[in-house]
Amino acid sequence: MKIHPMWDDHPTIQSELIATNHLIEKNITIKNPAVREEILKRLLSGGKMLRPAYSLLFSYYADERDAERARAIAAAIEVLHTATLMHDDVIDQAAVRRGQTTMNAAFSNQVAVYTGDYLFTVCFRLLSLYAKDAAVLKIDTTGMEDILIGELNQMDMRYDPNMKMRHYLKQIQGKTAQLFALSCYAGAYKADSDNKLAHLAYRIGHNIGMAFQVRDDILDYTQDPSVLGKPSMSDFRNGIYTAPLLYAMQANRKVFEPYIAREDAILERELTEVHGLVSQYGGIELAQGLAEKYTLKALKLIRQLPEHPVKETLKRLTEQLLLREM
Amino acid sequence: MKIHPMWDDHPTIQSELIATNHLIEKNITIKNPAVREEILKRLLSGGKMLRPAYSLLFSYYADERDAERARAIAAAIEVLHTATLMHDDVIDQAAVRRGQTTMNAAFSNQVAVYTGDYLFTVCFRLLSLYAKDAAVLKIDTTGMEDILIGELNQMDMRYDPNMKMRHYLKQIQGKTAQLFALSCYAGAYKADSDNKLAHLAYRIGHNIGMAFQVRDDILDYTQDPSVLGKPSMSDFRNGIYTAPLLYAMQANRKVFEPYIAREDAILERELTEVHGLVSQYGGIELAQGLAEKYTLKALKLIRQLPEHPVKETLKRLTEQLLLREM
Repeated sequence: MKIHPMWDDHPTIQSELIATNHLIEKNITIKNPAVREEILKRLLSGGKMLRPAYSLLFSYYADERDAERARAIAAAIEVLHTATLMHDDVIDQAAVRRGQTTMNAAFSNQVAVYTGDYLFTVCFRLLSLYAKDAAVLKIDTTGMEDILIGELNQMDMRYDPNMKMRHYLKQIQGKTAQLFALSCYAGAYKADSDNKLAHLAYRIGHNIGMAFQVRDDILDYTQDPSVLGKPSMSDFRNGIYTAPLLYAMQANRKVFEPYIAREDAILERELTEVHGLVSQYGGIELAQGLAEKYTLKALKLIRQLPEHPVKETLKRLTEQLLLREM
Repeated sequence: MKIHPMWDDHPTIQSELIATNHLIEKNITIKNPAVREEILKRLLSGGKMLRPAYSLLFSYYADERDAERARAIAAAIEVLHTATLMHDDVIDQAAVRRGQTTMNAAFSNQVAVYTGDYLFTVCFRLLSLYAKDAAVLKIDTTGMEDILIGELNQMDMRYDPNMKMRHYLKQIQGKTAQLFALSCYAGAYKADSDNKLAHLAYRIGHNIGMAFQVRDDILDYTQDPSVLGKPSMSDFRNGIYTAPLLYAMQANRKVFEPYIAREDAILERELTEVHGLVSQYGGIELAQGLAEKYTLKALKLIRQLPEHPVKETLKRLTEQLLLREM
């Protein structure tokens, strides 16, 4: 079981993430040994586990921390996230994720779809077995709706030359920021208090999630595939128009239109041209400015949290994400 | 909103199914109007709604029937069932279902996968909003695991010449009988009693589900596509070997082996030959005998239920399913 090296400096969270992974392992009860092994390989692959980590961090604010509940929520979030990634990979026909062969590439689209479905049920089982408060369940299902509606909206606007910044912000709120927000909220949630802290956690998570996705979308334009573990410019190729492009288009819409019109027939050479134009019109810098804006908002809200040893970790982690290279 | 004409003779269940459909409609909160309409068209297409109907029928055995809870469970079951069908259609590359264009054919595999995911969340939302007892939630998630594991097992054995009757029975238990069993169980479930009735309901549902799937598999060999709404022999074509073939293979394994070895390269002409051989070796009759055996077991258990006006409906409905032609 690998844990991402970024947690080496945070031994408490590191050991909680290991416990979370053990809980995940215990709950993958699927009998087919080959499929089970492949699922676990992907679930416990040493990914950053940011969503569960944030959820766990906020759980320390509870007066009497319920470790079992905190880990169950963290595990459910990671399982859910992996399920959506598995379905994303089918849809994007992706062959590699986190440096590993995807389920669809290793087996088939079929196995990947069903395995994702299975993970959806594991997520709910974790929540219903260990985190029984109806609020968490309800929030979680509502949240998942937003994630999927975000994905559907994104799909709806694929290759759409009229895609604007406001569509993009709505999409990433649904498909990414909502899960970050709910992770923080569910971690901080205590059934018997006034939930002010949980609501603050929600807003912090929202801003972290927005910053995270914008940074992710920048990396699709700036990262070498061998580092990122997936081909760069894959969003543009798939008709998904993100902050760097949308900012550049605000500067000169016309120059990008012919490339957009090429849809999935676009050539590698043309992709390189798009990349050059996005840089030239300042799209990367402006997008990084947007990520920074959300990060600063998150940090401002984090400062409103009560004093606690985890506060420093929350702060450092959030700053770190803004500068991450993968 | 269409309700299948088979319910015309059962006005109580008919009006409960209409109420269930209204609840489903209310809970499809997806904002994209085109996608919403397409989802509702498929959810409320006048299918038989057998699983929700059985669940509703058993809900009448409760001392103080909670109509809201009963409808929520019925709605959750129908939504879940539709979600799995949507993903099945992606996997089988099916173009038609219940006489309607499938989501994957009308839109794309992508939209069909995400819409199925969305319906999974609607199912859980229905349960967590209206049927809060943790037992129902827990049973449901465990049940879904079985359904998906059943599907995975089935996929694992596609085009496998060593497929046997015992594999088949295990597969249909997971992929079909379990949901029937849980539908009946959840309908009858009362948190404050000894749950004897619910356990009896579970066993009844199991046998109904087994009979239903065997009959379904027979229809794949006997029905004209224009009646069934999907091409017949599609199971064999997809490498799924069901009761009629497996019985015929028990009589003469060798004669079928060359056809199985053709896998998905099999021709229409060869499919017609397989059909003839299955009939010749008595596969259809033996499979119908198996469906009958499960139906008789279900009827025997139904007789053990306390006297109640719905008992006659349960009996008639279960007999009717054995003879259905679509």
